Amino acid sequence: MSASSRLLTASPDAVAAAARRVMARCDELARVTATPGRIERVYLSPEHARVNRLAAEWMREVGMRTWQDAAGNQVGRIDAVGDDASGGRVPSRSDASPGGRVPSRGDGVSRPSDAPALLLGSHLDTVIDAGRFDGIAGVLIALEVVRLLRVPTENGWALPLLFPIEVVAFSDEEGTRFGKALLGSSAVAGSWNDAWWTLTDAEGVSLRQAFLEFGLDPARIGEAARRPDELVAYLEAHIEQGPALDRAGEPLAVVSSIASARRFQLVVEGEARHAGGTPYDMRHDALLGASEAALAVERVCAAEHHIIGTVGRFEAFPGAVNVIPGEVRFSLDLRGEFDGERDRVWDVLSRDLDEIMGRRGLRWSAREVHSAPAVFCAPLLQDVVAAGIRATLPVRSDAAPVLFSPAGHDGMALGAITDVGMLFLRNPDGISHHPDEFVSAGDVAHGIRALAESILHLAAEPR
Amino acid sequence: MSASSRLLTASPDAVAAAARRVMARCDELARVTATPGRIERVYLSPEHARVNRLAAEWMREVGMRTWQDAAGNQVGRIDAVGDDASGGRVPSRSDASPGGRVPSRGDGVSRPSDAPALLLGSHLDTVIDAGRFDGIAGVLIALEVVRLLRVPTENGWALPLLFPIEVVAFSDEEGTRFGKALLGSSAVAGSWNDAWWTLTDAEGVSLRQAFLEFGLDPARIGEAARRPDELVAYLEAHIEQGPALDRAGEPLAVVSSIASARRFQLVVEGEARHAGGTPYDMRHDALLGASEAALAVERVCAAEHHIIGTVGRFEAFPGAVNVIPGEVRFSLDLRGEFDGERDRVWDVLSRDLDEIMGRRGLRWSAREVHSAPAVFCAPLLQDVVAAGIRATLPVRSDAAPVLFSPAGHDGMALGAITDVGMLFLRNPDGISHHPDEFVSAGDVAHGIRALAESILHLAAEPR
Repeated sequence: MSASSRLLTASPDAVAAAARRVMARCDELARVTATPGRIERVYLSPEHARVNRLAAEWMREVGMRTWQDAAGNQVGRIDAVGDDASGGRVPSRSDASPGGRVPSRGDGVSRPSDAPALLLGSHLDTVIDAGRFDGIAGVLIALEVVRLLRVPTENGWALPLLFPIEVVAFSDEEGTRFGKALLGSSAVAGSWNDAWWTLTDAEGVSLRQAFLEFGLDPARIGEAARRPDELVAYLEAHIEQGPALDRAGEPLAVVSSIASARRFQLVVEGEARHAGGTPYDMRHDALLGASEAALAVERVCAAEHHIIGTVGRFEAFPGAVNVIPGEVRFSLDLRGEFDGERDRVWDVLSRDLDEIMGRRGLRWSAREVHSAPAVFCAPLLQDVVAAGIRATLPVRSDAAPVLFSPAGHDGMALGAITDVGMLFLRNPDGISHHPDEFVSAGDVAHGIRALAESILHLAAEPR
Repeated sequence: MSASSRLLTASPDAVAAAARRVMARCDELARVTATPGRIERVYLSPEHARVNRLAAEWMREVGMRTWQDAAGNQVGRIDAVGDDASGGRVPSRSDASPGGRVPSRGDGVSRPSDAPALLLGSHLDTVIDAGRFDGIAGVLIALEVVRLLRVPTENGWALPLLFPIEVVAFSDEEGTRFGKALLGSSAVAGSWNDAWWTLTDAEGVSLRQAFLEFGLDPARIGEAARRPDELVAYLEAHIEQGPALDRAGEPLAVVSSIASARRFQLVVEGEARHAGGTPYDMRHDALLGASEAALAVERVCAAEHHIIGTVGRFEAFPGAVNVIPGEVRFSLDLRGEFDGERDRVWDVLSRDLDEIMGRRGLRWSAREVHSAPAVFCAPLLQDVVAAGIRATLPVRSDAAPVLFSPAGHDGMALGAITDVGMLFLRNPDGISHHPDEFVSAGDVAHGIRALAESILHLAAEPR
């Protein structure tokens, strides 16, 4: 790491005020919900439009120009001014890969507005009955970082001696409405799949129809895609969605990788029969087979390191008090740090299910509905995030904590077009996707400073 | 058993034709359904009205006068003619209980139409995606018995030397629509509970509202109630809802008792959390606790004699692929031959649930939604049904098979006002509450003859 990194000059008071603003705005966004009393904000909904308008307003407040892209992501951009001689430099993935992209750059004091930008961001959509920080805090922290880094110029505000920064509020990370996650970031990554247009929500509305109703043109989805040579990297701050930092007593961590994930829809079929008249030795009770399967997922995964399997949806049919369930449909969400380990565990589980269902005279099948390889954060970005944490928390241990993320993030999609780095903030008790989800204002202040310091380190990186 | 019992004079051809008519009418009623392609006929529905009209037509065809009672049960009655001196005699519960009812009877050749009647019957309502024989076959067999027993009179048809017979097609045995079983037979038994009026169906329609929409007056529900002194006894033929007769190679059985039953609605509460970020040692996964509970029900009940426990309804919340289930609601249906045994098993299960949920950091609670004591068939009626079976199947073993019924029947309600007897018909593979439910025409023929012979034995009973 270069010794020439400049520390953020912002005062502790300014950072604390920024953190308070993040907390207040998390509260404000929490009130934009489809269901009074709980948080529910899904892709292409009226609530989505409302939070995009708020985010755009806040982006303009810190000097960014703003637009909503073709996938409904809200974007803000602020350009850079500076003097190459004074140390600012733009590393990009193309620097490390011969034959790669060469960022087009202006010379001298003023950076042109099409210079490669550092992307900061996270998402504003939520699960059902969500917390108020997952994704949202990352977007708001990015805006406060812009506020702290910017300097006044003749035309307003710009970033000194840096690259342009874009903040993206992704429109769909959770996949709540259409069952497919990362729709917003997939559009930015240019990996939109036309097969998704016919996905439907619970009311039968197709993704295509929802685009039209939201005021977006499906034919223009390609305009949301960014080219690798437009980007320096993608950096995201996010609350940890588990308890590791809280248990370690650490406020911040470098993320090493984002989980490898597979999702399956499983069906167990037996025989629906009269609950009174059918003795146990004649039953083929799909519920009991599926119950054993859910417990097997726990037993097998808990015995592994960094493998998590969860049965989240579970429906028994016909669902009558006095009828033995003839069919159960359930989901399996399987995550691991490494693709191979994850796949090996699925093989073990499949053999267990064969045994369970064979013994009970049941049939089972699985349909894979999602598969994503592990995404590894770029070593350079892991280094600058670690440096940002050390600059923020100098009295703590030398080595910043490093965590693998079992939860998915927008970086999984963006990894296809640029380097990805992530910073985790401590989450008390690790409660996530739940109204009790929390992050303290103090840790948000640490996160704001660490992300800003990381960016300064990235800009100063000599290589 | 009296040696004076008269054998049914009907020819084998007449009985076989009666059985074919039962089979054809089961098919005809199966087409009266709320859902094309499967059988669904619930209380106070348009389908209920249609099958009542058909049943009334068939009742009149065998010489009965008909009415629909205040609870929507379809009733037909045929009176008796005969000569007391020639052997006909009416035993009733009051004969056995000093101080009990004394049936009002006419003297001489003609029985007055208010003489105590033998009730035959079963129900025409169904579960969802039902078979075509459960209940229905019993009503149709009763009508064929009337057809075989009756004789021409000056005014049409009557029963010779017997008591009047009423056939009741009960309107609600399954409890599919309002969650409360035996509504039709409870009204006849005079045990209607005014608290039931506010029960609602899945669409939120109250039982009271459904009565009005069906054209029934809730204020007149009491008119459906029968007095003990109006009745000789209640006899029902029903397919076995299990495989015992099929396994034994026997077509018919005497029923000794109807199960003691309790139903519970259970709730397991844990914590809904992010499926990726929450390590196993921090999870309070309601689905895994409820899965263990369902398996405990099987383990505990299977180790007992004549205890059956079934988890039929099972719903996990919030039901998202990537959220650990925070709550599961499920039903428990617990049946036993004896109330005490059933209650002891519930105590054992409760302790098991305490252990499971305590170990997993979950809370659980149970609400009892139904409780019915075991109903024992009257010894006299068990005797006459056994005699009816022996008269029908003389070449088989001397002792007719005797079965306990784990499934509930209308007799559970009628036991409050009269003696109850039941005859089971073989059910291949014991499939019940399922489209594959079956009974053969040959066994229906045996059932018709055995029920008719039972009635002749009952009438001849000297005591």
